[in-house]
Amino acid sequence: MNDDSSTPIVDELRTWIATAAPGARLPSTRTLVRQHEVSPLTVQKALRSLVALGLVETRPGVGSFVRAPRTSRPHDFGWQTAALGTPRRQIPAQSRALQPVRHDVIAFHSGYPDRGLLPERLVRSAFARMARTDAAVARPPSSGLPELQSWFAAELAAMTPASVSAPGPQDVIVVPGNQGGLTACLHALVGAGRPLVIESPTYWGAIHAAAQAGVQLVPIPSGPHGPDPDVLADTLARSGARAFYAQPTHANPTGARWSPQLADAVLATVRQHGAFLIEDDWASDFTLSGEATPVAARDDGGHVVHLRSLTKSVAPSVRVAAVTARGPAHERILTEVRAANMYVSGALQAVALDVVTQPGWRTHLRSMRRELADRRDLLAAAVGEHLPTAHLTAVPTGGLNLWVRLPDGTDAARLTSGCEAKGVLVAPGDEWFPAEPVGAHLRLNYSGPNPGAFVEGVRLIGATLDEIT
Amino acid sequence: MNDDSSTPIVDELRTWIATAAPGARLPSTRTLVRQHEVSPLTVQKALRSLVALGLVETRPGVGSFVRAPRTSRPHDFGWQTAALGTPRRQIPAQSRALQPVRHDVIAFHSGYPDRGLLPERLVRSAFARMARTDAAVARPPSSGLPELQSWFAAELAAMTPASVSAPGPQDVIVVPGNQGGLTACLHALVGAGRPLVIESPTYWGAIHAAAQAGVQLVPIPSGPHGPDPDVLADTLARSGARAFYAQPTHANPTGARWSPQLADAVLATVRQHGAFLIEDDWASDFTLSGEATPVAARDDGGHVVHLRSLTKSVAPSVRVAAVTARGPAHERILTEVRAANMYVSGALQAVALDVVTQPGWRTHLRSMRRELADRRDLLAAAVGEHLPTAHLTAVPTGGLNLWVRLPDGTDAARLTSGCEAKGVLVAPGDEWFPAEPVGAHLRLNYSGPNPGAFVEGVRLIGATLDEIT
Repeated sequence: MNDDSSTPIVDELRTWIATAAPGARLPSTRTLVRQHEVSPLTVQKALRSLVALGLVETRPGVGSFVRAPRTSRPHDFGWQTAALGTPRRQIPAQSRALQPVRHDVIAFHSGYPDRGLLPERLVRSAFARMARTDAAVARPPSSGLPELQSWFAAELAAMTPASVSAPGPQDVIVVPGNQGGLTACLHALVGAGRPLVIESPTYWGAIHAAAQAGVQLVPIPSGPHGPDPDVLADTLARSGARAFYAQPTHANPTGARWSPQLADAVLATVRQHGAFLIEDDWASDFTLSGEATPVAARDDGGHVVHLRSLTKSVAPSVRVAAVTARGPAHERILTEVRAANMYVSGALQAVALDVVTQPGWRTHLRSMRRELADRRDLLAAAVGEHLPTAHLTAVPTGGLNLWVRLPDGTDAARLTSGCEAKGVLVAPGDEWFPAEPVGAHLRLNYSGPNPGAFVEGVRLIGATLDEIT
Repeated sequence: MNDDSSTPIVDELRTWIATAAPGARLPSTRTLVRQHEVSPLTVQKALRSLVALGLVETRPGVGSFVRAPRTSRPHDFGWQTAALGTPRRQIPAQSRALQPVRHDVIAFHSGYPDRGLLPERLVRSAFARMARTDAAVARPPSSGLPELQSWFAAELAAMTPASVSAPGPQDVIVVPGNQGGLTACLHALVGAGRPLVIESPTYWGAIHAAAQAGVQLVPIPSGPHGPDPDVLADTLARSGARAFYAQPTHANPTGARWSPQLADAVLATVRQHGAFLIEDDWASDFTLSGEATPVAARDDGGHVVHLRSLTKSVAPSVRVAAVTARGPAHERILTEVRAANMYVSGALQAVALDVVTQPGWRTHLRSMRRELADRRDLLAAAVGEHLPTAHLTAVPTGGLNLWVRLPDGTDAARLTSGCEAKGVLVAPGDEWFPAEPVGAHLRLNYSGPNPGAFVEGVRLIGATLDEIT
């Protein structure tokens, strides 16, 4: 990109500067023009690069000089301790699930599907097409591109029974990723210091976002069949919470998928308590068997606020998600989204819309789901064979993860570092608990690279487990 | 983008559906192929569009049918009133400056440069190039693409004197736009219920973000020369605030640019009070005369947190900005950014980096600045001629706006609607005041479309002003 005729001059002068005294004068522009047989413009460009690198300073009309090295002294940022005070909650700066996937390891830790599972060809051609349209330079409305709002609304409407009034495009707010949408919902619907009911275990990103928003988490237990609606009712009544965050479809990490009866019961409960269900529908593209209907498709009373992201299924570079909400809650969330982000790049919105409206998108989803189901079965079988003392709580009907209960007393942190030493990255289950973990768990993601190494990876986890117990 | 051969079929069928009974069967694919002389693929595409619009449902192997209309009844969202409580502050859902720019009006209201001032060719080719690289599908680190962090750091380092230790790439956090960076800083450095000193008037987006974050604003007066450092010192001491938000370079809306002496005085003041200066360096690409050095380049004590955006100068679709901060504040902000957004699209980061490292970028900046200076002079002269009772507080040395004081007692809202009736969009100054406005103002943006109509636009503002006073 920067590989032009000034590069050799920059390189040569950098070598010279490395041994020159601070303040030493560089050869004149005229000399450099002659030496390198280039134009004065090229020499000036080289000098500007050196200035930008902090190696040279130019005094107009005088010449260019080797810059004195910065005084090197330790910084004292101690004053910030008083200005910042104690943080609201000690949370890890970075979750295990966000760590980069290296190529020399067997990776079960990541939360993001491997490139081989993405519609790469569709994404690349959508970016190339978009580059020629207005979307490359225009500013979209802050609620989103109307066509993309319509698409999100139509996806929900297609699953809405005729007795329920379906949401429309005007109910959709396009946000820069699910995390941004969730953060906006937490600020708009809950607020700092106020309670939010949440499943335990649940998505670490939601726990993290709630902690940062200063929201008070009120956990209820949840397992492979979802939460108990009676416990939810008690907890809403006792805490005074007006919102419940949940992942009814292929919950992360448990893989739970609510039955239609449970969805109805939860909906009845939030209605009775005048509360919101913040439905994080992160995995609707990753349903591996049957049909998954979001709870939002059963509600037209404004109780369900629906979050849906395209980032995991389209591509990590296409940070586009939608919040669908009705009533005053919609305005509150929109105000929050505008305050936090103004609007979402129209380029990314156009690319997302292009990908999901191509005929190839449905074809891709089908083959991606088949591939994911194979990986899930492969990994589940390997767990059964090589982790005989562990317990797979359920084989999920969708999502990207297996949730493995380890023998009581297992030191998950020690297991994690032991596995890492053997070249296997796993995510210890503790991050998915809003309070103390109720047992040692591993989350094994089956959407990582190189499924051919999955069995060997689980064998190594088993060997590490044997060593530490 | 969607304007293809299926559009006429969609249009004709929509007309037909409008009067058809629910459940009525659509003509067969074969019939439509014959009628329209197109391929079966085109007909299927048209049918998919109608399904997406919720007008048609398809039963495979049977045919396509007009969908039954949803039961229409009024919604009752009253329960949300209790769940949501009163909002923290009544703020307008949408600022005047964010309203779309229509083509049949003379637009002085927008905050975004017209397309003609953007490096459109560079942006389009950067998108096209990026579509062929890994960035189109990869997930970048949550602090940002390392090369882009380096670029932002080098830009600041190039203006840092040798006596000050310059920031490095590790100090830079890439965020999805300036608004997202500011919101993260407000949560991380100030927090709900705590005070923040702010200039008055100042950027409405900052007022809005602070209101949403629940931050308590403590305004100090600021004019064409910036704030008074003694007033700042008093206000920091009195309020206990540990942060001051300001735009030292081409403040929006006043155009103020701090002198080096003022920058030093403010820096000394925040140091003395153990406080942060949140420097919103939004307009460094829009310096029209002289060189603008950010205050951040004078500080290595971690007091200045520097915000810089590329969205306005590169393109509205390229939502990329940077927060540069040192010490524990850096970690606090990074934790906040991760909780709110996880990471910024690597595709947008790659495009931003490509544009600003092209040789054409510097050329573009030079010609864009010349064009902006001409527009500024044109508009300032028109204000002098056609708004004789108004007062232009200063002709700014950069930025995008003129800040016009109206005669005392002018009803700015009435002036705005009167101008709109004449086809001229202006932004009333009230939105830029964190508390009561101290006078009637207009902000006239000179980066909108069609500068040829500027003089006529100001003449019409003058005529409206005459009518209402």
